Amino acid sequence: MGKSRPRSKLVEGEILERAAALFAERGFSETSLREVADAIGISRPALYHYISGKEDLLAKLVRGITRETAAGLLRVRDDPALSPSQRIEAAIRDMSVRVANSPARFRLLISSEASLPEPLAEEHLTARREALEHLTSIIKEGVDAGALKPLDERVAALTILGMCNWIAWWYRPDGRLTAADVGGLVSQMALNGLTNDHDRRASEDTNGVGHALNLLRQDLGYLERLLT
Amino acid sequence: MGKSRPRSKLVEGEILERAAALFAERGFSETSLREVADAIGISRPALYHYISGKEDLLAKLVRGITRETAAGLLRVRDDPALSPSQRIEAAIRDMSVRVANSPARFRLLISSEASLPEPLAEEHLTARREALEHLTSIIKEGVDAGALKPLDERVAALTILGMCNWIAWWYRPDGRLTAADVGGLVSQMALNGLTNDHDRRASEDTNGVGHALNLLRQDLGYLERLLT
Repeated sequence: MGKSRPRSKLVEGEILERAAALFAERGFSETSLREVADAIGISRPALYHYISGKEDLLAKLVRGITRETAAGLLRVRDDPALSPSQRIEAAIRDMSVRVANSPARFRLLISSEASLPEPLAEEHLTARREALEHLTSIIKEGVDAGALKPLDERVAALTILGMCNWIAWWYRPDGRLTAADVGGLVSQMALNGLTNDHDRRASEDTNGVGHALNLLRQDLGYLERLLT
Repeated sequence: MGKSRPRSKLVEGEILERAAALFAERGFSETSLREVADAIGISRPALYHYISGKEDLLAKLVRGITRETAAGLLRVRDDPALSPSQRIEAAIRDMSVRVANSPARFRLLISSEASLPEPLAEEHLTARREALEHLTSIIKEGVDAGALKPLDERVAALTILGMCNWIAWWYRPDGRLTAADVGGLVSQMALNGLTNDHDRRASEDTNGVGHALNLLRQDLGYLERLLT
């Protein structure tokens, strides 16, 4: 029994992902549970082992995405073992991997959130707001701690959500990258940005030598702080 | 006549944006041109001054978005006046401002691209591919020129597209930020990343003094190159 749990979770995830792909293609109201079962290659009774009906399926699709995203961000926000920078990296990695593991579900949800029935729509909106709040507060903490440059925290949070959510539009599970690869690449890019230190220096270089001396001065100050 | 052009363009943009919002809310096939005209507050004949019918309206919606995005990126890619870093910044700024100026159209298009009729679907897909290619080659050029760190160019391009496209989901034209503000914030974030040089140093610090000495060595090398 204890052993069948992970497998059962796996099958449920597979069902939700295939159902989402089917709904995205044909529309939710136009697709029957029989068609979902056929597409997955299981019997209807077997399908009913995992879900109680179409409304339940939709609810699971929504909750498995927005609520778990918000819960994941909350865990990262409250993890005392992480530094502010590590927290941001973990948050972005967590979100990216989540999207890469269920691209069809994310696409469906983002495309159809305007037409979700109540009370699911409200629940989804609440969880989305919570996710944004958690991420914003993780970023704010990083800025306050001096780990990030001063920036518009809300815009930064929304931009990061965009990088992560968009994975649903381009990631192919059968392609060259694993979900973990994507999580690593996207979180690194968000954290470090595209520009080389070296090259930001070169491009900012109106007074090269003075700037180089400034960098050296900063490095000496940094060394001094480490030694004292 | 020459003078009425910009205004005519403005009205057409307004029509397309309102129509997109209405289609997103009610569905394309469920919304009549009369309802579009009513929502905008113009007569049907006035509407027909700008569009010849619903299919024309949809085609204008699609072309105004994907084709112009691809064309904008091509212009940036081929602009000889820009350095590799400036080119990337200009590309991201151009895309961000474009999305912020037409959020409803981007949302509608992204949500409904699976159900576009042919040959519009093909045209849209081609323009989307072109946009990705242009952006990827702008990034590749930046990496080759040493202006960017070595990275997965395709993932970087897709991640940047995500940051830009997602603006359609959060930007409010009547909010505190102008489209130009958003373009500036998003392009800066993409280009520079979130992390302070200073603080990346601190967080990478497993062997602080050795790392500080490495930074000094790098910066001395940089100074040396400037002086010789």
